Amino acid sequence: MSLLVTGSIAIDTVKTPHGVSEECLGGSAVYFAMAASFFGPVRFVGAVGADCPFDFEKLFAGRNVDLAGLEIRRNSKTFRWHGTYHENMDDRTTDYLELNVLAEHPPKIPQSFKDTEFVFLANTTPRLQIELLEQLTQPKFVGADTMNHWIEGHAGDLKNLLKKIDCLIINEDEGRLLGRDYNPIKAAQNIIDMGVSVLIIKKGESGSMTYSKHKELFLLPAYPAAEVKDPTGAGDSFAGGLMGYLAETGRTDFATLKKAVAYGTVVASFAIADFSLNGLMAINRADIDSRLRTLRDLTQF
Amino acid sequence: MSLLVTGSIAIDTVKTPHGVSEECLGGSAVYFAMAASFFGPVRFVGAVGADCPFDFEKLFAGRNVDLAGLEIRRNSKTFRWHGTYHENMDDRTTDYLELNVLAEHPPKIPQSFKDTEFVFLANTTPRLQIELLEQLTQPKFVGADTMNHWIEGHAGDLKNLLKKIDCLIINEDEGRLLGRDYNPIKAAQNIIDMGVSVLIIKKGESGSMTYSKHKELFLLPAYPAAEVKDPTGAGDSFAGGLMGYLAETGRTDFATLKKAVAYGTVVASFAIADFSLNGLMAINRADIDSRLRTLRDLTQF
Repeated sequence: MSLLVTGSIAIDTVKTPHGVSEECLGGSAVYFAMAASFFGPVRFVGAVGADCPFDFEKLFAGRNVDLAGLEIRRNSKTFRWHGTYHENMDDRTTDYLELNVLAEHPPKIPQSFKDTEFVFLANTTPRLQIELLEQLTQPKFVGADTMNHWIEGHAGDLKNLLKKIDCLIINEDEGRLLGRDYNPIKAAQNIIDMGVSVLIIKKGESGSMTYSKHKELFLLPAYPAAEVKDPTGAGDSFAGGLMGYLAETGRTDFATLKKAVAYGTVVASFAIADFSLNGLMAINRADIDSRLRTLRDLTQF
Repeated sequence: MSLLVTGSIAIDTVKTPHGVSEECLGGSAVYFAMAASFFGPVRFVGAVGADCPFDFEKLFAGRNVDLAGLEIRRNSKTFRWHGTYHENMDDRTTDYLELNVLAEHPPKIPQSFKDTEFVFLANTTPRLQIELLEQLTQPKFVGADTMNHWIEGHAGDLKNLLKKIDCLIINEDEGRLLGRDYNPIKAAQNIIDMGVSVLIIKKGESGSMTYSKHKELFLLPAYPAAEVKDPTGAGDSFAGGLMGYLAETGRTDFATLKKAVAYGTVVASFAIADFSLNGLMAINRADIDSRLRTLRDLTQF
């Protein structure tokens, strides 16, 4: 089935203990689209300024990514992020940020995209996420990301958003903040009670927890990556693999969701093995399926 | 096969967000023995002072725990620990500590215990662990725990110990400190290179990682406990369930170790559901087997 992503396109400068990558391609929509493209066609919605140095046609060449929703705004500048990862590779500092085009009105969903069934709204203001979603005519399964800033400062809009989406994918700290309980199951239930059908909590190196409105639960460790060069985009690659697999199968039952989470985990493990999109560009679907089998072996008893 | 534990017996005073338990029974050997007793006979080695108020015959009544190695020292006092758990139930503060009998010479292994095949040396100075182990004539599989204090201050003794044991069971911080790498696989390999055959890293709410000298790897999430009243003894209950299952089967191959880790995980989840030994006293082997099946369901995809 059809899959659409809306999110950021970034010019990133990333420092990690393994090196520096200056002015490289990043952004939630870019990582998501690359990750999801292993599973089927992706409809891409995002905006850049006239300064954007990247050739997206070339980037996605040979992949089924429809760029009809890519807006190049002549009088705007592209979103820029500079970040430094610390030795544990989980903590990071934002050194510099220019919202630029992200501070403007959201991109317009092209007419040819309006019938999309599987939708991912990457992290931005909850109000913009709602405005983007309202442009779609028949969404079947909508996933979204959010962050501490919106949980703390835009609680009303966020609560409205949670009533309109099916699946929230957030990290552990965000889950505690939104669910208001140290016990992860109780916090998850509190978030489910806000209106989503499925909650996926990403716990970095500790894996993920998936919890449904029917109280179904799935726990999966992270894939144990021997090399982590750049964690940027791990969460968006996880979401891309997950939503990509759901759209490929057209199903959203819990058994399918479990396998989708495993695919997301595996795709993220490839993304962090190199800077920028290089980790994802170096693999194919067979690599993903092979690592999925390894992950299954590592977790069965 | 036979299983022996040596470790502490404590008079604990524990404060958690769920209440206070004053002057209650604790200690690594006590939690371990109770946990292991679900799987088969346990030989118990530990010392208390004349002030010890607990009736161990009554405590272990109906369980196959041989107390021939319990020393009651008339002129000594029992080890005391006062601790407070914070809201996240992972961080704890030691409010008060009296080593007492633990600062004296180690207990003597009774003649009838000297042929024990499966042995667990709970956390104490590495030199004492070696002295205890040297009293045994034919150990087949020896597990041990240690802590930051010995890794930092008694590195020489600890390295000697690691050459004499088969399995080290430590927590994540200890693993990083001993393995000297932020990457968990690299840190694990560094510890294996010190001489143990199996390393088990306990990661609290994030589960565990088991790694062997043959580079076999097993990742298991923690059992998602809806109620955590008192985490005291979780690690020793984990070790007790694990070693208890190994001694029951008499095997130590990796497939058996994986299932043993799952049993340890499940037994620990019961231990933390109530104060002191109450969580473990309230269950039977059928409860453990039932929860093991649940844990398998929660982690399969």
